[in-house]
Amino acid sequence: MRDVAVIGVGMSEFGELWKKSLRQLFVDAASAAIEDAGVEKIDSMYVGCMSGGLFVGQEHLASVLADYLGVASIPACRVESACASGGVAFRQGYIEVASGMSDVVLVGGVEKMTDVDGAQATYALATAADQEYEVYHGVTFPGLYAMVANAYMHKFGTTRKQMAHVPVKSHKHGSMNPKAQYPFEITVEGVLESTRVADPLRILDCSPITDGAAAVVICPLETAKKLSKKPLVKVAGTGHSTDTIALHDRDDLTEFAATIRAGEAAFKMAGVGPKDIDVAEVHDCFSIAEICVLEALGFAERGKGGEGAESGETALGGRIPVNTSGGLKSKGHPVGATGVAQIVEVTEQLRGESGKRQVEGAKRGLTQNMGGSGGSAVVHILEVA
Amino acid sequence: MRDVAVIGVGMSEFGELWKKSLRQLFVDAASAAIEDAGVEKIDSMYVGCMSGGLFVGQEHLASVLADYLGVASIPACRVESACASGGVAFRQGYIEVASGMSDVVLVGGVEKMTDVDGAQATYALATAADQEYEVYHGVTFPGLYAMVANAYMHKFGTTRKQMAHVPVKSHKHGSMNPKAQYPFEITVEGVLESTRVADPLRILDCSPITDGAAAVVICPLETAKKLSKKPLVKVAGTGHSTDTIALHDRDDLTEFAATIRAGEAAFKMAGVGPKDIDVAEVHDCFSIAEICVLEALGFAERGKGGEGAESGETALGGRIPVNTSGGLKSKGHPVGATGVAQIVEVTEQLRGESGKRQVEGAKRGLTQNMGGSGGSAVVHILEVA
Repeated sequence: MRDVAVIGVGMSEFGELWKKSLRQLFVDAASAAIEDAGVEKIDSMYVGCMSGGLFVGQEHLASVLADYLGVASIPACRVESACASGGVAFRQGYIEVASGMSDVVLVGGVEKMTDVDGAQATYALATAADQEYEVYHGVTFPGLYAMVANAYMHKFGTTRKQMAHVPVKSHKHGSMNPKAQYPFEITVEGVLESTRVADPLRILDCSPITDGAAAVVICPLETAKKLSKKPLVKVAGTGHSTDTIALHDRDDLTEFAATIRAGEAAFKMAGVGPKDIDVAEVHDCFSIAEICVLEALGFAERGKGGEGAESGETALGGRIPVNTSGGLKSKGHPVGATGVAQIVEVTEQLRGESGKRQVEGAKRGLTQNMGGSGGSAVVHILEVA
Repeated sequence: MRDVAVIGVGMSEFGELWKKSLRQLFVDAASAAIEDAGVEKIDSMYVGCMSGGLFVGQEHLASVLADYLGVASIPACRVESACASGGVAFRQGYIEVASGMSDVVLVGGVEKMTDVDGAQATYALATAADQEYEVYHGVTFPGLYAMVANAYMHKFGTTRKQMAHVPVKSHKHGSMNPKAQYPFEITVEGVLESTRVADPLRILDCSPITDGAAAVVICPLETAKKLSKKPLVKVAGTGHSTDTIALHDRDDLTEFAATIRAGEAAFKMAGVGPKDIDVAEVHDCFSIAEICVLEALGFAERGKGGEGAESGETALGGRIPVNTSGGLKSKGHPVGATGVAQIVEVTEQLRGESGKRQVEGAKRGLTQNMGGSGGSAVVHILEVA
């Protein structure tokens, strides 16, 4: 298989974008990525989207979006894996380029979530959980992650206050990201006093409902050397796995097995370990998720994932800066776009283009994107070629 | 890229299966395919499904279905391209095996359409058309294909009666398929006198709402030679393309450009032409679709696609038997499963396992699967290795 490089990145603004449709958001991000790559044409296209059907009444996004991008004569494929849709789309694009099937591939992710009201959005998101055994009984994602949080606090003694440092750290990063939905800082007290959603989770522990799109252009590394004038960013590793869809089928609620396996596969392929990563974007859909994910990836010891944000280890300037973009919490979480937006952030970090939130000398970054309560997960490792 | 073979096939019954859930249908088909392949394990999995969200309130199917199949530790990816979801999923599986990324890959397709009423099913299916410019104005798929039919009859002089021979031929084939939803014969008079849906289309021109699943196991051809005791079926060609999502953006309503391009790509890769194909499964969602598709693939001259069913050319025993399974019309059309079910039928034909509907001496077959009113299309050519 051929080495693959990311040669272009683009993102729409993230937020409540009532004046932009799903197709417009996608075209904004895709056009920016194509322009950044400096390519004349793309050979094939992937798009990650969780639920065009339930959010905007539009499936068949491969056709719609290829059409509105002006490339409706190429292969285009929509990929769905709930909130991991974008990350899985990137992996499919990677496989297509690595295989030799196509040379220049666009991978986008998009979600338009604010055309429906909050109840309908919560219903749509809940279709990522087990419809027959979880959702039927009335639980939605804040409730599921609240169970994870309670189990974690009980098992490891992590405090509610420690957990609050996670979104505080992410908002600090996000305050430096002009495309973030909530680009402002929050405080630990603010988190603890915010509206209760599902005990122990408060609203400032929860990623928001967001409209947005992100896109990247990838090609063989050898082609990138000729095409691109920017620092070359290579896909060093990819890993993808699944786990039981329902929490009740797991031995340990606090262990995200799909992320563990996806991480192991990506690290093995890249020939590196957690200590070799300079910057990471992980799936902090809820504060507790970032904590468990950092442990699953080997960035923190078991039971100690809650300490990094408090100690500053996961902040800019710390040992392993996590979610420099602001993460899902501050940057926003347009579910199908998130996995691709993570690739955008890490690529910009490795190119040294992250401005105020630049991790100095970053040479290797990791992205982790997951669906549901961890029923699917995908990990990528990017490095300066 | 490596040569790829189909080594296992499986299908659930197709029909109104009120006692089987989406996950059960998928597991039935996937288990049958794995047993037929005789493999101990699969490395990765794809599933084509159009709208788990709108039909059963369940997205994140990669995780749900890997879990219920008992393989929730492998990469799994759901692919959606409206009614072409199954065919596109097969192509993604092909790319993954051909690339060297994985060896044994399961590709399934599934749709559970009868848990909602007819109006909701029609709404869900209409999300494959242009939501903003077609569906918003009240048109659904029978209306869109009726426009194609009227344009075609006007342009080429094909009669309403000629068109009726298409479903008559397909039902004759389907009457020999024990898994078909409607395994009985119909008459030309019956079609012409059946309920009007959208002029000139009658209900017996329209494929039905169906529950069902299909699955295949693929692996490198070299591995297949060691593993399989059955005749080896190789993937000789694959092609995939898109077209404008909306009919009003096309120069000619009767020309399916995505199918033309996908067919050209698949024929080129296989190094053969339409005359070299012994059996074909094509996307006859409406009678007029089969007619236009046969022309797009070069099986009929332009304007003469309506003559094959009447003359017997596309029937069993004819020059190019089309839809020996009964096609979408008689076998049924669980939208996400259809593209994979086409691969099942052609594989069985090439293995000589099709019983009463066997095409004698079939050595090479083609499948064509499309989404919406042809906004996406995928073509595969299989041949005896």
